[in-house]
Amino acid sequence: MTDDNRTPVTVIGLGAMGRSLAGAFLDSGHPTTVWNRSAGRSEELAGRGATVAATAAEAIAASPIVVICVLDYDVVHEILDPLSGSVAGRTLVNLTNGTPRQARETAGWAADHGADYLDGGIMAVPMMIGRPEALVLYSGSAGAFDVHRSTLGTLGTARYLHADAGQASLYDLALLAAMYGMFGGFYHAAAMLGSEKVPSAEFAPLVVPWLNAMVGTLPVIAEAMDSGAGADDDSNLRMQLVSFANILTASREQGVSTELLEPMRALLDRAVTAHRDGGDVPNLVELLRADPTSAG
Amino acid sequence: MTDDNRTPVTVIGLGAMGRSLAGAFLDSGHPTTVWNRSAGRSEELAGRGATVAATAAEAIAASPIVVICVLDYDVVHEILDPLSGSVAGRTLVNLTNGTPRQARETAGWAADHGADYLDGGIMAVPMMIGRPEALVLYSGSAGAFDVHRSTLGTLGTARYLHADAGQASLYDLALLAAMYGMFGGFYHAAAMLGSEKVPSAEFAPLVVPWLNAMVGTLPVIAEAMDSGAGADDDSNLRMQLVSFANILTASREQGVSTELLEPMRALLDRAVTAHRDGGDVPNLVELLRADPTSAG
Ligand SMILES: NC(=O)c1ccc[n+]([C@@H]2O[C@H](COP(=O)([O-])OP(=O)(O)OC[C@H]3O[C@@H](n4cnc5c(N)ncnc54)[C@H](OP(=O)(O)O)[C@@H]3O)[C@@H](O)[C@H]2O)c1
Ligand SMILES: NC(=O)c1ccc[n+]([C@@H]2O[C@H](COP(=O)([O-])OP(=O)(O)OC[C@H]3O[C@@H](n4cnc5c(N)ncnc54)[C@H](OP(=O)(O)O)[C@@H]3O)[C@@H](O)[C@H]2O)c1
Repeated sequence: MTDDNRTPVTVIGLGAMGRSLAGAFLDSGHPTTVWNRSAGRSEELAGRGATVAATAAEAIAASPIVVICVLDYDVVHEILDPLSGSVAGRTLVNLTNGTPRQARETAGWAADHGADYLDGGIMAVPMMIGRPEALVLYSGSAGAFDVHRSTLGTLGTARYLHADAGQASLYDLALLAAMYGMFGGFYHAAAMLGSEKVPSAEFAPLVVPWLNAMVGTLPVIAEAMDSGAGADDDSNLRMQLVSFANILTASREQGVSTELLEPMRALLDRAVTAHRDGGDVPNLVELLRADPTSAG
Repeated sequence: MTDDNRTPVTVIGLGAMGRSLAGAFLDSGHPTTVWNRSAGRSEELAGRGATVAATAAEAIAASPIVVICVLDYDVVHEILDPLSGSVAGRTLVNLTNGTPRQARETAGWAADHGADYLDGGIMAVPMMIGRPEALVLYSGSAGAFDVHRSTLGTLGTARYLHADAGQASLYDLALLAAMYGMFGGFYHAAAMLGSEKVPSAEFAPLVVPWLNAMVGTLPVIAEAMDSGAGADDDSNLRMQLVSFANILTASREQGVSTELLEPMRALLDRAVTAHRDGGDVPNLVELLRADPTSAG
């Protein structure tokens, strides 16, 4: 049931994520209007009380707050640019994944056309939406965030970062990079064990606590990075380079491609070569911020 | 204080890890003999009651269980091969990082000379040793593990995997691969945020719960891998490829090298190209088990 005391909300884009966002608004009683390029994505939401707009223009006109979540920023502009005359006075919340530069450009476009703009990064998969563990990062108009805080809070934990619209995207992409690193490592591990017919489900109970323990060391590493602390003798990089070579050798012997791990070995190599004391984790991050071809 | 009811233990190799292992044995009352190639590593342990052997031969003669933890298997053989006549009847516990093949060869060497052999992988940093969160994986002689279970348990949680001496190393290296993937992703993330002067310590409270949540999805992914389950429409790979391109573009714009992430993008690309439905995570692992150059 929608509730007339709740702010009406429009959701543009009904992919896996857009449908989940619209569903969360409906669940918390927001009058919800939806639109999607292709038909056939809105039936289930209509059954739950959503109004299905015939055009994007109609969808924008329906609500003071318009959430857009599509494939990329090209699609955002394809949909919104022709409707620049209709966004004035509304709050545009763009939850499409993009770069900080794209977010800043879109914030500029919104300002030019009299709309408030929030750029967001969804740190959750669709099935987490509507629960506190779904973190959504926002940056852009602080005023719009304050006004719509409780509406945005229906999607998960809403966290405002900065007036610079690009910040949410920067954090989003950084968190995704960390995630893809973790997943890549796991895929490699699964391939190694698969080569000896160890089922992944047998490995999972070992890898989950192990990775959680290692993730638990990140705050200490982060502090060392910030303070530029010296080498940690407890796990010196030279020793790590030997273990790393063992991973690569064993992978090859097991018929597993080393493609995901080679660049990390190269980075460890460069850190050890560049520093007489063997180098340290802050050096690794420094090296990533320099031109890799000239640092070699 | 050492306790005469505890099994005497020898520790060969007093690097950061060997010192920690010897310290844990001393703390739980095991008469402990230590040896290291270079002088100056044993003073603190001697002060806590360790017997410092003058030679590796003397160290081996001192205890029925000999733990060796040095830089690599070449060093293991450099130290042990000349002493092959003195290992009969003892249990050799090799906690040096190496490949499954090296572990199997060393198990063969031990068998040839009448020693029981356990190969181990330490899934912990030195400061965790002696606590239950320090997981040590073992494979090789089941009998030796049973006899020395409580002694080995003083180092942390001792987990026996398989009679094949190579298994502990396979799991060890797979877990390390997963860890390096995660660390690599974090280094990249830290470099991205550093490019906008966001301190790593400010990012840590976001990345830790995020990675823990993503690590929490691994058991589901592992089951899908084992069952060969079909595409998960909730986070399709085509959409992920777009986000991934955003990470790379934004990184370049922020002056951060994309070297650690490029291979993952290439892998996603190959999966999407190879599968009409966009591919899925099990496809990614399959691709790692094929020749990357021919999978194009
Ligand atoms: N799914 C996740 O796990 C997840 C997690 C966090 C963030 N996100 C982000 O959420 C956004 C949407 O992801 P999703 O999972 O919902 O993707 P999706 O299921 O692939 O849906 C893509 C959406 O974009 C629309 N679209 C694509 N090209 C279009 C065009 N040229 N014109 C108009 N509409 C177009 C699609 O409309 P049609 O139906 O007409 O094709 C659909 O609504 C992405 O930026 C993604 O990075 C997703
Ligand atoms: N530290 C960790 O975080 C960690 C975690 C898990 C597993 N491990 C594993 O534990 C093992 C030892 O690591 P570590 O951290 O103790 O390394 P480390 O601090 O670098 O110590 C290396 C040890 O190997 C000895 N060694 C090197 N070359 C030698 C040679 N030619 N002959 C005789 N001894 C030699 C060194 O003796 P000298 O003092 O004479 O140089 C020292 O005892 C490695 O396999 C490592 O992968 C370490």
